[in-house]
Amino acid sequence: VSEPNPFRADVLLRVRYSDTDQMGTFYNSRALDWFECGRTELLRAMGTPYTTLEAAGVFLPVTEAHVEYRGRARYDDLLRVTTSAEMSGKARIRCDVEIEHAESRAPVARGYTVHAFVDAGGRPMRPPSWFLDALRGANGAGG
Amino acid sequence: VSEPNPFRADVLLRVRYSDTDQMGTFYNSRALDWFECGRTELLRAMGTPYTTLEAAGVFLPVTEAHVEYRGRARYDDLLRVTTSAEMSGKARIRCDVEIEHAESRAPVARGYTVHAFVDAGGRPMRPPSWFLDALRGANGAGG
Amino acid sequence: VSEPNPFRADVLLRVRYSDTDQMGTFYNSRALDWFECGRTELLRAMGTPYTTLEAAGVFLPVTEAHVEYRGRARYDDLLRVTTSAEMSGKARIRCDVEIEHAESRAPVARGYTVHAFVDAGGRPMRPPSWFLDALRGANGAGG
Amino acid sequence: VSEPNPFRADVLLRVRYSDTDQMGTFYNSRALDWFECGRTELLRAMGTPYTTLEAAGVFLPVTEAHVEYRGRARYDDLLRVTTSAEMSGKARIRCDVEIEHAESRAPVARGYTVHAFVDAGGRPMRPPSWFLDALRGANGAGG
Repeated sequence: VSEPNPFRADVLLRVRYSDTDQMGTFYNSRALDWFECGRTELLRAMGTPYTTLEAAGVFLPVTEAHVEYRGRARYDDLLRVTTSAEMSGKARIRCDVEIEHAESRAPVARGYTVHAFVDAGGRPMRPPSWFLDALRGANGAGG
Repeated sequence: VSEPNPFRADVLLRVRYSDTDQMGTFYNSRALDWFECGRTELLRAMGTPYTTLEAAGVFLPVTEAHVEYRGRARYDDLLRVTTSAEMSGKARIRCDVEIEHAESRAPVARGYTVHAFVDAGGRPMRPPSWFLDALRGANGAGG
Repeated sequence: VSEPNPFRADVLLRVRYSDTDQMGTFYNSRALDWFECGRTELLRAMGTPYTTLEAAGVFLPVTEAHVEYRGRARYDDLLRVTTSAEMSGKARIRCDVEIEHAESRAPVARGYTVHAFVDAGGRPMRPPSWFLDALRGANGAGG
Repeated sequence: VSEPNPFRADVLLRVRYSDTDQMGTFYNSRALDWFECGRTELLRAMGTPYTTLEAAGVFLPVTEAHVEYRGRARYDDLLRVTTSAEMSGKARIRCDVEIEHAESRAPVARGYTVHAFVDAGGRPMRPPSWFLDALRGANGAGG
């Protein structure tokens, strides 16, 4: 069952000129780069930075990604990326992300990524119990 | 109803070093860049290159994207991107994409993008009849 | 004559996973993306954000770029980008950039970009006097 | 002494929509991505693909990069990247690159990258003799 009110982490970022395309808004694949920024800050806020996970031999490659584009964002616009996570079955984690303009809260994009847990050799592994504890603790705290 | 056997266009591309990340495979957002390469070649093969669409004031911003990651691809690997398209309702077009290793046909990623038809000012517009004719012609030809 | 002590603006940024490559450090072209982040903050700090310049019909395309790579930077490392600018002749501006680790100050990269002043049609133009005043004011203030 | 007429390898590539920015031409850092495409094909044409180098424990990180931007290139334009290489002292290799429109030969960008030879641990190493032989053979052949 999905958490009714999971822990959320926010991060602000600015649209770079390198993110724009000739339509004048951000190029579509940048949303997935920004989802990564959101995940990075969520994991840090949970007390389990992704650098710690990789240092412990736990890698979280993306197995699925979904984005709905909801509004434009222009060069130098300040965006807020809000991310939450929950387990999806026993072996995957799903991160839900929402991107909006930081001040107006006008929507930009939302979606999710699903991640497997694999070891340094790319073999599926169980999520470490310390990670599951951190996730449960965070989501409980948000409930 | 979805075409049972729509027209497909292929394009080959090589994984660039700039596409890799520290996990040693391609970074997840690159799949959406490669989907674009597939779309570009599909539209060209249909006789309606995207440059022609934009020159005619028809823009196709992405409104939704989905990717399933199915296998690794390393620097310098040669990939085949296969793309088909069909209308999704009266005002959207959906492009289905499959990426595999060019020789082994081992899967890399698959997914789709959905696009609105908008004018230069970003306002929704009807797809031009010449574009719908080209799409119907192509997909009929593939049937 | 080059300013002995021009105005400098700082911005912090984190290395994203999408910036890494399979060598485990940032991919070389990202330095130019980061140089842009530095320029954006320098222009804002001068009171002439680049959005204001473009809104006034003044564009600053890069005509030359140079980067020296001086050290590694890994995923999630916090970097400081320090930027200064001065006119290069009457029609170009040169931005000097230094990137270092935010805490250790270990060097990452340094270099510069040179920019022309062009109008919306891409034609060379004189730098607006209000921009030259802002640049002179800023660099004087730093002297 | 620099080779008067070194071996050159060509590769064609198309400007992607993801390469464009809101000025309507390619974003400046993409030139360095394209320089990499040129290098990759040069090394392959020399009989020493970069994958072979890395498999042999030889890495060529960029230590310096320089780009002059000489003309616009738009979405879907077909470009030719022409690359040559020569040793720069005993421990570095320099790749010179020229990018032009494939048909009109109108210039787009030119520049160079300088690379160190390092082992998997990032320690400087001597270039392998088989690599130096391949480079000498190629450049002699072009003379």
